[in-house]
Amino acid sequence: MAKYKGFRPNWQEKRAPEGSYRELSKWGDPEAFKVPKEKLYGVLKETFDMTDEDFKIPKDTGYDKVEYDAPITLGKAQLKKLADIVGADNMSTDNYQRLRVAYGKSGYDVIRLVKKIVENVPDVVLYPSTEEQIEQLVAFAHQEEVPLYIFSGGSSVTRGTECTKKGSISLDLGKHFNKVIEFNEINQTLTVQPGISGPELERLLNNAVEEFGAKRAYTCGHFPQSFEYSTVGGWVVTRGAGQNSTYYGKIEHMVLGQKYITPVGGPIITDTYPAKATGPDINQIMIGSEGTFGVLTQVTLRVFRLTKHNRKKYCYMFRTFEESQAAAREIMQSEFGYPSVFRVSDGNETAVMTKMYGVDDIPVVGKLFKLLGFVTGKKSIMIAWSEGEKGFAKNQRRKIAKICRKYRAFPLTGYPVSEWEKGRFTDPYLRDSMMDFGITTETMECSVNWDNMDRVHKEVMEYCLSRPHTVCMTHLSHAYPQGANLYWIFITKDKGVQDFLEYQKGILSAIQKAGATMSHHHGIGKLFAPYLEGQIGSNQLKIFKTLKEHFDPKNVMNPGGTLALDLDDSEKVFAREKW
Amino acid sequence: MAKYKGFRPNWQEKRAPEGSYRELSKWGDPEAFKVPKEKLYGVLKETFDMTDEDFKIPKDTGYDKVEYDAPITLGKAQLKKLADIVGADNMSTDNYQRLRVAYGKSGYDVIRLVKKIVENVPDVVLYPSTEEQIEQLVAFAHQEEVPLYIFSGGSSVTRGTECTKKGSISLDLGKHFNKVIEFNEINQTLTVQPGISGPELERLLNNAVEEFGAKRAYTCGHFPQSFEYSTVGGWVVTRGAGQNSTYYGKIEHMVLGQKYITPVGGPIITDTYPAKATGPDINQIMIGSEGTFGVLTQVTLRVFRLTKHNRKKYCYMFRTFEESQAAAREIMQSEFGYPSVFRVSDGNETAVMTKMYGVDDIPVVGKLFKLLGFVTGKKSIMIAWSEGEKGFAKNQRRKIAKICRKYRAFPLTGYPVSEWEKGRFTDPYLRDSMMDFGITTETMECSVNWDNMDRVHKEVMEYCLSRPHTVCMTHLSHAYPQGANLYWIFITKDKGVQDFLEYQKGILSAIQKAGATMSHHHGIGKLFAPYLEGQIGSNQLKIFKTLKEHFDPKNVMNPGGTLALDLDDSEKVFAREKW
Repeated sequence: MAKYKGFRPNWQEKRAPEGSYRELSKWGDPEAFKVPKEKLYGVLKETFDMTDEDFKIPKDTGYDKVEYDAPITLGKAQLKKLADIVGADNMSTDNYQRLRVAYGKSGYDVIRLVKKIVENVPDVVLYPSTEEQIEQLVAFAHQEEVPLYIFSGGSSVTRGTECTKKGSISLDLGKHFNKVIEFNEINQTLTVQPGISGPELERLLNNAVEEFGAKRAYTCGHFPQSFEYSTVGGWVVTRGAGQNSTYYGKIEHMVLGQKYITPVGGPIITDTYPAKATGPDINQIMIGSEGTFGVLTQVTLRVFRLTKHNRKKYCYMFRTFEESQAAAREIMQSEFGYPSVFRVSDGNETAVMTKMYGVDDIPVVGKLFKLLGFVTGKKSIMIAWSEGEKGFAKNQRRKIAKICRKYRAFPLTGYPVSEWEKGRFTDPYLRDSMMDFGITTETMECSVNWDNMDRVHKEVMEYCLSRPHTVCMTHLSHAYPQGANLYWIFITKDKGVQDFLEYQKGILSAIQKAGATMSHHHGIGKLFAPYLEGQIGSNQLKIFKTLKEHFDPKNVMNPGGTLALDLDDSEKVFAREKW
Repeated sequence: MAKYKGFRPNWQEKRAPEGSYRELSKWGDPEAFKVPKEKLYGVLKETFDMTDEDFKIPKDTGYDKVEYDAPITLGKAQLKKLADIVGADNMSTDNYQRLRVAYGKSGYDVIRLVKKIVENVPDVVLYPSTEEQIEQLVAFAHQEEVPLYIFSGGSSVTRGTECTKKGSISLDLGKHFNKVIEFNEINQTLTVQPGISGPELERLLNNAVEEFGAKRAYTCGHFPQSFEYSTVGGWVVTRGAGQNSTYYGKIEHMVLGQKYITPVGGPIITDTYPAKATGPDINQIMIGSEGTFGVLTQVTLRVFRLTKHNRKKYCYMFRTFEESQAAAREIMQSEFGYPSVFRVSDGNETAVMTKMYGVDDIPVVGKLFKLLGFVTGKKSIMIAWSEGEKGFAKNQRRKIAKICRKYRAFPLTGYPVSEWEKGRFTDPYLRDSMMDFGITTETMECSVNWDNMDRVHKEVMEYCLSRPHTVCMTHLSHAYPQGANLYWIFITKDKGVQDFLEYQKGILSAIQKAGATMSHHHGIGKLFAPYLEGQIGSNQLKIFKTLKEHFDPKNVMNPGGTLALDLDDSEKVFAREKW
């Protein structure tokens, strides 16, 4: 529990009532909480012109029991058929369960939940346990033209699982469809059902000796911020990235084989050869399809030797984000392999981070920074670690040190990296605490080439800060020789759902206009899909539509906005010139 | 010129007559020749029950002038329109030019050429120089339903450029459509027209300082055996691999952006972000489409810092192919980065190589081998080099040495690697020399997982050697943590075209039946396409057909077998159980 010397806001650090909206809006472990440290609280008060008084009575907490009126329109015979397929025990028409699978964890979802705004729930939630059941459910959806949605971990930040069409069913794969199918140590692959969670996957691999009788321990290499509450299926269908992707690659680099049950033309089974030259890549057609082509039922992942013990953590302070970016680019282009975690913060984020980690408070460091011309608000922190084989990691760490010196960086210890590591999966908890007092936190991210990074950073930041009372922090992570991901965290005043969407639209438009993608990490779901055509171009979107027509001519798979497949032109946003 | 102590066969080491079949059948530089060394000649005589007498008078040399009767069926108005588009100077209806763009360099092509068997030539060859011209030509083909083929380097070994439909046009992109569009040093990318040749691309990058005013030298990283006579466009549309792909990746890992002119639904322009999470990967839909969706007009490649000076060459001898494979697998799974060239030969190939490189002839080495139980025909050679940043390469080399020691390998010097390097692009010349005396050489290759490599190796080898008078050598190259490529070189007696195809069919069937892909290196063209459905499965092939219908509903782009898009079931071969 964060200690406060002065007034301590009325942070809500108690378990939400059973069956409440807050149970659904709250991030992660029901018993876990994270509140701003006192210094950050000071920043919040200052930024938002608030006083201690404003932090005494929480606003929309969502403590009320989930209650809403959304009549079920599926017929009795249909419901019976569904129950026959999965078994009556594996079907729910309970309002709480229906809402649970519809909303994810975007700011938009959280605001709606604490304000008790219920939209777009399915009629019924199903918990299939076998591929045969899924086949029957997909056939049912196709025959009866019933929209089918898929839920698993529930961590979508893109309205990925939201059931925007009425009279729909939602399959929750996280409950039963989460088994290991095969571990193959010779090929270093693991085949799983998509509902398996990140921690369970990683636990099995870390303990492969005991679990599979393997010769050594392995890792999945994929650790998104949502790791603890996301599943392999979600990673794959959203073409996701983890915090260690700079070394391990994004999920599309890890997937070797897949199986999908589609309404028409399936099942689609991709082979699992290490590489081939036999036409277009079907794996890469299916990855990122976000449930619109069919239900993913099997994934074969490349796995990696566990090299945690070889980790080298390091941290550097640069005078400017320009210099740290240049160093990052040089690191990625120097042909000594890539670091695993690799994160470079801009001036704003560095100011907050150094405060949080107390870096400036170390007297010698603070003094030295001043003496050497490192200015708060300008200076830029790089936190990174190398892993892989021992000598590989050691050489990399040494070469990165050399590049950082070239850019006049000041070496800090591995301490800030360890501090970052502690919070790597828990920062989302902060959002719930701040929301209670009308402060909204949200993130946006994109992928951009090195030569355009400054423009994207500046223009998006400019828009974010064009609203008074806003904190905006940027970092780059997930780097490549050709560019990197840029990620914005912004904290702003809650002025209701419409205002939030308006602000988000401005940011997304700024990202697209400056020349970056709508997503690098987590797919585009229904929230960012209106921007897809503007990013990839109309001719390219038509390819997706043709594939959709091939697999799902009746548009029953995750319909209502995903991948812009069924959006009207009027619903789309074109922030850059059309192709 | 190879020296012979005894009888020297009547090797044909003179430039082929102008306009002859041999000009087309012959590999590479018209003035360059390569003939078997005397030891190999001895092996040939022995294997094929031949005597010096048989090597006095060459058989089918193809020295005759290209002459055939293939009437042009396109109308005068059509020819005029084509001439209007590209200019009369950039159009040819000459028989030699028509044949030149139709045949590639497969054994099947070479046999047909030296035997003067002319099939499947286009009516007219066009040499476009601008994208606008290509747009007009594709529109013409679509409107007039005229089949359109694409030629560039001419090194296809899959009948990729063969004009199997009558009344067709062929675009030769190698002549004019071969310019650099943009070099971007910040993003480390190079954008080119597809007709640019390997050596020109590499020359520009190696001399980027002078050519582009760059800060340093770069490399494309892609060096197929056909490097000197292949083009970027061919690499991309066939999803090709180079000899250094273990480090640099296959071409699909190097392509950042592309542009295609398609009959319908185009142009297709992919963006060039370093990564993204916005739906299926359009680059990976277009790569490997082998000219069936449209004409590739622009490619943006990731390029790499030139690290040639850091190369570490090394070579090891193992007791068995099983042990060298196990070492190869461990190397690829050990997380110290991947070697660049990486090639492990089986017993048969090792026997030939050590003979060619004279390894066994070094008295000490030969004696030691015997003493340590390295048996000719069993022992297996690994030749490799590491590159990249100096410390990276050094560490890798050291760790590989350790793994090789673990598998009881005997370290040789870098000498065999240098010997291999000398011949890396010139081995295809040998084929022409041997063909003159009725000896056919051909290669086949596939991709296979580690756990199935033994089976594929054994079963394919068994089939190859089931014919008397055959030499068959195997190596693995292009390795991955999950498996590798297997590559067969076989030398057999020329018994005519039908016999050759029959033999090839047996090998391809054996590859598929044992559980490997039909191609890892160079696409499948019209030669291997009958086996595609057997490899990827019918549902998966239907995805390709849907894409084809989207881009080219009239089937004018490279029609007649490619990717099995327009094959009848009766033309297909299913060597493994259907999906």
